[in-house]
Amino acid sequence: SPARVAQHLLQRNKDLKKCQAWVFENLGQADERISSDKLERLQHHSYAPLAIMIVKKEAEGKKCPQVIPLGIPESAFCFDGSMITKRDTRLLALSRLGCDCSRVVWDIGAGSGSISIEAACLYPGIDIYAVEKNPRRFSQLKKNINTFKTAGVHPVLGSAPAILKTLPDPQSVFIGGSGGKLAEILRETQKRLGKNGNLVVNCITVDTLTQVVQSLKQWQWNYSVTLVQMAYMNPHDRPEILRPDNPLFIVHGINTHIRHTK
Amino acid sequence: SPARVAQHLLQRNKDLKKCQAWVFENLGQADERISSDKLERLQHHSYAPLAIMIVKKEAEGKKCPQVIPLGIPESAFCFDGSMITKRDTRLLALSRLGCDCSRVVWDIGAGSGSISIEAACLYPGIDIYAVEKNPRRFSQLKKNINTFKTAGVHPVLGSAPAILKTLPDPQSVFIGGSGGKLAEILRETQKRLGKNGNLVVNCITVDTLTQVVQSLKQWQWNYSVTLVQMAYMNPHDRPEILRPDNPLFIVHGINTHIRHTK
Amino acid sequence: SPARVAQHLLQRNKDLKKCQAWVFENLGQADERISSDKLERLQHHSYAPLAIMIVKKEAEGKKCPQVIPLGIPESAFCFDGSMITKRDTRLLALSRLGCDCSRVVWDIGAGSGSISIEAACLYPGIDIYAVEKNPRRFSQLKKNINTFKTAGVHPVLGSAPAILKTLPDPQSVFIGGSGGKLAEILRETQKRLGKNGNLVVNCITVDTLTQVVQSLKQWQWNYSVTLVQMAYMNPHDRPEILRPDNPLFIVHGINTHIRHTK
Amino acid sequence: SPARVAQHLLQRNKDLKKCQAWVFENLGQADERISSDKLERLQHHSYAPLAIMIVKKEAEGKKCPQVIPLGIPESAFCFDGSMITKRDTRLLALSRLGCDCSRVVWDIGAGSGSISIEAACLYPGIDIYAVEKNPRRFSQLKKNINTFKTAGVHPVLGSAPAILKTLPDPQSVFIGGSGGKLAEILRETQKRLGKNGNLVVNCITVDTLTQVVQSLKQWQWNYSVTLVQMAYMNPHDRPEILRPDNPLFIVHGINTHIRHTK
Repeated sequence: SPARVAQHLLQRNKDLKKCQAWVFENLGQADERISSDKLERLQHHSYAPLAIMIVKKEAEGKKCPQVIPLGIPESAFCFDGSMITKRDTRLLALSRLGCDCSRVVWDIGAGSGSISIEAACLYPGIDIYAVEKNPRRFSQLKKNINTFKTAGVHPVLGSAPAILKTLPDPQSVFIGGSGGKLAEILRETQKRLGKNGNLVVNCITVDTLTQVVQSLKQWQWNYSVTLVQMAYMNPHDRPEILRPDNPLFIVHGINTHIRHTK
Repeated sequence: SPARVAQHLLQRNKDLKKCQAWVFENLGQADERISSDKLERLQHHSYAPLAIMIVKKEAEGKKCPQVIPLGIPESAFCFDGSMITKRDTRLLALSRLGCDCSRVVWDIGAGSGSISIEAACLYPGIDIYAVEKNPRRFSQLKKNINTFKTAGVHPVLGSAPAILKTLPDPQSVFIGGSGGKLAEILRETQKRLGKNGNLVVNCITVDTLTQVVQSLKQWQWNYSVTLVQMAYMNPHDRPEILRPDNPLFIVHGINTHIRHTK
Repeated sequence: SPARVAQHLLQRNKDLKKCQAWVFENLGQADERISSDKLERLQHHSYAPLAIMIVKKEAEGKKCPQVIPLGIPESAFCFDGSMITKRDTRLLALSRLGCDCSRVVWDIGAGSGSISIEAACLYPGIDIYAVEKNPRRFSQLKKNINTFKTAGVHPVLGSAPAILKTLPDPQSVFIGGSGGKLAEILRETQKRLGKNGNLVVNCITVDTLTQVVQSLKQWQWNYSVTLVQMAYMNPHDRPEILRPDNPLFIVHGINTHIRHTK
Repeated sequence: SPARVAQHLLQRNKDLKKCQAWVFENLGQADERISSDKLERLQHHSYAPLAIMIVKKEAEGKKCPQVIPLGIPESAFCFDGSMITKRDTRLLALSRLGCDCSRVVWDIGAGSGSISIEAACLYPGIDIYAVEKNPRRFSQLKKNINTFKTAGVHPVLGSAPAILKTLPDPQSVFIGGSGGKLAEILRETQKRLGKNGNLVVNCITVDTLTQVVQSLKQWQWNYSVTLVQMAYMNPHDRPEILRPDNPLFIVHGINTHIRHTK
């Protein structure tokens, strides 16, 4: 049985205990079950008699890959100055983006790609187009994709909205930067975003907030606004002051209309 | 090849396109690769000639299981009054809890179990002990575990800190409620939490904040405090006022010491 | 001399020590000085030989009038539900309203009159027109003016902007409520507010914020926005939670243009 | 009558219209009234037949003195780096300090003296002891007192709590800085602050907040905490971002006990 096999393997080689294994029980039957765990834990489980087990053996000297933390720290990314969506606001944006119901995501003004990469780690099966026009940031974006090995993120060098015409229609759109063309990008989003699709815009200026809210009103989409104010006291900060981040408005629109004719 | 097999299957039965399949390429070789995707997407990929494919066929009439959204909405849980950690603050707490490096998590004062369940959806391989002493909330907790089919969450009826002695040592501890025994729970946490383990406490009173920060200082652990203020304007709110949540202090301590002798 | 007179009076009647007195020294001379103090303090000062002193004797059995506190507590006003500008935000609004440079102030949507009354306590020499259209609130407004004996506040029953045409041109305008006619009220304000005059609007909706900011931009006035988030833990609150007020945007515009032709 | 006299004066010299005048009606009678206004406004009022009027004629070429604005801008003070209580938080602190019921106020860690000076402008009749130990800041404090001609502010060079023993007992205490001796300063405050006296501490660290709240609890005084988060978009800021100030906790304690025996 899989548990016995695991025990046996671990007696011979303790280094295998962190290796991942897949167990396929009763394939094709009503009580079919597919599960996955590390060998060391798998030896204590019980499985159906009819089971296939596949063990992924790491090459010697190679560490088992680290599971990605939820809310990847900024320090794990290569980025330019403050051009990154920080851990906390990234999670708040992603929880509104509805990637679980999406096949195609646009990340416009992707910068270092932190939104795209965290989304891809959480939802490996979807296609995320990370659009960035600045060549320097684009090369950081590609470097970060490589670091995290997120095959689902497709880096796209070019300016929105023009470049968006080359991409498949999205079910989720995140606007992190607009390069002064917010109105045009919003217009393209309205035309292309699928029914029940999600638009999320992180606004730090009253101007952007105003523009996005007015568009969503005019389109008669459902929308919500979340005002986020965070302040941080980090370890070793002396004095122990809570240092504030800029207030942020997360605008979340949902396309409640039947698809527009283009 | 897997792509051809997928095409063939889909020509015969379009309903299979959302089914999940696993492809194991070059098993045991240096270029071994294990991947997984839906059939409809898999037919467009290319794979190594030496590959095994396993397709999980859903029973007819059954929908493919919905992927869980990041930040499960409160409405998906059965809960008591306002006794729930809301979507946004739940994500902020989880991103500090370090479940990616944990095997055992304690969720003390679990209430409806939203923290435990979201953690289990994100990290299916770990054991989460959801401790709740109130029988009514405990039954809601069990109901929610059942709804989300999160086998990793173990509901525990009982009062902390006494009940904690029956649980395995944790690498992550979340305190959502203390039933007036915060000092004792903190003491047990200090004794049991592993090296580099994470303690996260969501504090809404100055008193709790004070008590937790003073303990962490005394233990000489690293700690950070995040002050979170959120306000929400929801769709259909008229007038469109931003309604604030209570300010929250998320205290995050890391056990930077060598394990205490018990 | 005034000090000697004061000493003499106080020896005869100690109850006079809190009475207010005015001293006019060297009237009409280059070193003329007018000052005022309580008798008990005045006896220790020195004054010019040529001086007139006037003492205000309180009727026996009457307490010396209480000086008004800065930030009059809400409980001192008669008001309707939550229709009052609270102490803290009232002070923040008043500090932007520039009453020290004004002769005429408009308080539009005055409600219980708390802004007008606090302004009148601070600047007794100015005329404040408190406009309220709701008869019930108007009678509360009059009651509050009577309580605080603020002769500078003129209650005006009627709807803005129509009623504003009957008022003298202002140097300061506060908009606390607009009865759905914000655009028209802003237009009248633009026409009538004097050069370097101050407009202050307390906005709790994104919509109002948007409308006011866009008007100020279009008029090319200088403007600032203050986002205010306050949370309160009051004595005897158990548990000791910080309870948040609605986030507030205080928009402050300054008419930096030459007066518009009407 | 005063109105006629005013008219007459203004016909002869229009420059007098901004001059301040005092009218004393029915001195010593039950309907005695003392009022003050500018000449130009006074001519439209009606007064009792029995009245004395005193007009303060400004020397030619001299401007009428500017009334002090509520919330004196930081730019009006001479100060060191960020060592100043800013306009908005100064007003919030002053509205809790209860100067209207005080004769003696301590401003500990006075820095540039902005709290003392604004208090003195609002309540000219009280004695405010501004304690500062840093000689450089002390000289700025004296300079600012001179600028605002606030005779009620007494600058005191020295370290709290030692220097406090030389001062009269206060009814209001503001702690803006403690030079690392907060515990001792709080102890002295407890001993000396009169019944129903007010203690206000502006805390930016969790540590200070904790220490002050715990002292107030132990003393069994009434206390409240206000969490203040402000963000500012100033004119000409491009981009129009709301820039946050550090979160601030204003702790306000009231001595509800009978005076302690010293």
